[in-house]
Amino acid sequence: MSATNPVAHTGGTGVHQLGARQCAADEEDRQARAAILRLSEPGDGLLFLAVEVFGAAGLLRAAQRGRWTRPEAEQLDATIRERGLSVRPGMFGAALDRWKVRLEDADGVRDLRGMARLGARLVVPSDPEWPPGLADLGLEQPLGLWVRGEHRLDRALEPSVALVGARAASGYGAHNAGVLAYELCGHGVTVVSGGAYGIDIAAHRHALSAARHERGHPGTVAFMAGGVDRLYPRGNADVLEEIARRGLVVSETAPGMSPMRQRFLQRNRLIAAASQATVVVEAGWRSGALNTARRAAELARPVGALPGSVHAAGSAGCHRLIREGAAELVTSPDDVLQLLPGTGLDADPGHQDTLAAGAGDDLSDLEKRLFDALPVRGGSDISTLSNRAGLPVPEVMSALAALELRGLTVQAARGWRKNPS
Amino acid sequence: MSATNPVAHTGGTGVHQLGARQCAADEEDRQARAAILRLSEPGDGLLFLAVEVFGAAGLLRAAQRGRWTRPEAEQLDATIRERGLSVRPGMFGAALDRWKVRLEDADGVRDLRGMARLGARLVVPSDPEWPPGLADLGLEQPLGLWVRGEHRLDRALEPSVALVGARAASGYGAHNAGVLAYELCGHGVTVVSGGAYGIDIAAHRHALSAARHERGHPGTVAFMAGGVDRLYPRGNADVLEEIARRGLVVSETAPGMSPMRQRFLQRNRLIAAASQATVVVEAGWRSGALNTARRAAELARPVGALPGSVHAAGSAGCHRLIREGAAELVTSPDDVLQLLPGTGLDADPGHQDTLAAGAGDDLSDLEKRLFDALPVRGGSDISTLSNRAGLPVPEVMSALAALELRGLTVQAARGWRKNPS
Repeated sequence: MSATNPVAHTGGTGVHQLGARQCAADEEDRQARAAILRLSEPGDGLLFLAVEVFGAAGLLRAAQRGRWTRPEAEQLDATIRERGLSVRPGMFGAALDRWKVRLEDADGVRDLRGMARLGARLVVPSDPEWPPGLADLGLEQPLGLWVRGEHRLDRALEPSVALVGARAASGYGAHNAGVLAYELCGHGVTVVSGGAYGIDIAAHRHALSAARHERGHPGTVAFMAGGVDRLYPRGNADVLEEIARRGLVVSETAPGMSPMRQRFLQRNRLIAAASQATVVVEAGWRSGALNTARRAAELARPVGALPGSVHAAGSAGCHRLIREGAAELVTSPDDVLQLLPGTGLDADPGHQDTLAAGAGDDLSDLEKRLFDALPVRGGSDISTLSNRAGLPVPEVMSALAALELRGLTVQAARGWRKNPS
Repeated sequence: MSATNPVAHTGGTGVHQLGARQCAADEEDRQARAAILRLSEPGDGLLFLAVEVFGAAGLLRAAQRGRWTRPEAEQLDATIRERGLSVRPGMFGAALDRWKVRLEDADGVRDLRGMARLGARLVVPSDPEWPPGLADLGLEQPLGLWVRGEHRLDRALEPSVALVGARAASGYGAHNAGVLAYELCGHGVTVVSGGAYGIDIAAHRHALSAARHERGHPGTVAFMAGGVDRLYPRGNADVLEEIARRGLVVSETAPGMSPMRQRFLQRNRLIAAASQATVVVEAGWRSGALNTARRAAELARPVGALPGSVHAAGSAGCHRLIREGAAELVTSPDDVLQLLPGTGLDADPGHQDTLAAGAGDDLSDLEKRLFDALPVRGGSDISTLSNRAGLPVPEVMSALAALELRGLTVQAARGWRKNPS
């Protein structure tokens, strides 16, 4: 299996037993995805949709053919209609023309072999270690992730907190990034960040330092905007190499590709979706870290931001997020831990059971659905609940009213939660 | 009129024409209130209730008599029942016993004359200059306010922002208090604060400085916990005297009385109720300024708090308020101006009219009531709306749902507001 499947046994603890035929099909899919990741830019929704319809290998064949067959075109049209997507006719034709451009460079087998020599593997959605949170990205889900490191990706990310912020960090920001990273790791939480100077690298350094004390703790996961073989910026290469050895370095960009502005922005969506909460440590009014925070908020992930002096330009972005209600003000590792879903739940598991038992019978399906979406700790506002329960706001409100009358929900400082009594 | 009514013509622009008999009745009421303010401590709800039932002069006669007549006692019982108040039988008897204690010192005529010599007047609820916002205090409304200064009290307070914070202010806090006070005054907003060292006095100083440039602008209003003739602390006497000359110094405590802990707390409720918004500039985890902020939030007044370093103990109280959702994070005079109700409304008065016209007909009374409680700018959360509309939370939610369906409300970052479209 070694020549055609160089990665099957490098996936940390994620080894699975499959029949030989299934295994070959999986491997064709993995090779096709490795090739496709070079064809397009991250976050290409049309590409994701086409792969969903035809499979990765099918899409690759279409690109190699250079045009859609009539049945393929009809199948795409039908999918667009079924899902009610606003895709204009001809867009898939134009997309295929774009994807063809890099076809000559796209060789999945070569990339998988080359990366295996570097100790990197391609993780694909069918792998057990695929992080489940990425599904929340919808059409913007990545088709695969190049990963360097020994740990299983999904387990490394649970629980995890993204610490993001400005490259031009102040001493205040870098210090706070370090303290948060160190303390979070000490509580078994993995840090997630990019690879940039400033907040990112300060968080990574201290996470690595804390992880030295804990056997089997990955410490930190770095999401790159370029290929995992081109650790960027070069000035951080030593830290990023250490993360590749002891934590995880991840990218959806094909090997050898350099980071570009659009790739940084798309990389931010992975940080937001892969982690369970995002904290902006220090950020100016227009910092890219705000983009990560907003993506996280759109994905209904808790977002925190550290305050600072009202005169510090480097805190203006954090204050902006807090003012807009996009982030909660956090001042300490404890505050950040409280952002994580289910925090404190383990301390008293009886509560959840009691509630589940008491709440079941006399509720409508809609009310049960909302009840399930309510957090046990903290509070969620109506738009978050609407998002989480997948119910329109008026229905969320009438269901909340019903739950409130039954004493099953209480209002917290910033929203609603289950009533523990 | 001069001997028995030493204050009638010192009330700034609030001169009103009344028949002689009405004038005499008003004067008896004012003298009785001046006496009563010495009998009890601020915020005595039983006293307020008894004055509502019997009038100030009637209450004073009962105190002088030393017991309630049977009809009086029956009238009090009936009032308690009507209002559904939780007042135990005998509480009014005990209260009268308390009020009798200082009766010997209580001489309204003497106090009015003495204070007139100092240029102070007693403003009572029937005066045109009585600040309407105080009514929101319910049973905790003051019975009268001793006022030093030329300006009409109600006009001086509209618009106004309370700037409050710690006595042990840092350079950061004092600087920010000064900048906010100066800039707010420059925008025609009166500053309201106590008289303490630290944030209070920094705010007053800079407000006075800004008001020098604006004719007829009171600049700042200082609410004292002791009598207006005993400016406390002595170290701030020069600034407070200047406020008495150019702005306004206000207290509900009788002349000569010294400030005490309980009077400071009760004074805070006046600052919260008299101003249109409260901003905590700098405050520790247990600062008294948090008490003022919480009172303001209970009164559905907008509350702001300035962030600072996560390592500064002096900012911990501000961060606490923001995290609890009791205050909005503010970083600039502009942010503070946006807290004021109706900000920006003048820029497009048509909106309000359009809404009023469109919203009228097909709404239930309950929905209309909630619609009126919705802000035009910013957003109010459900508990604030519940408070403002006087409706229980489930009714607020079902009314919001109805308004939302009609497109009359939209969800803002932190709650709900009228839909301007």
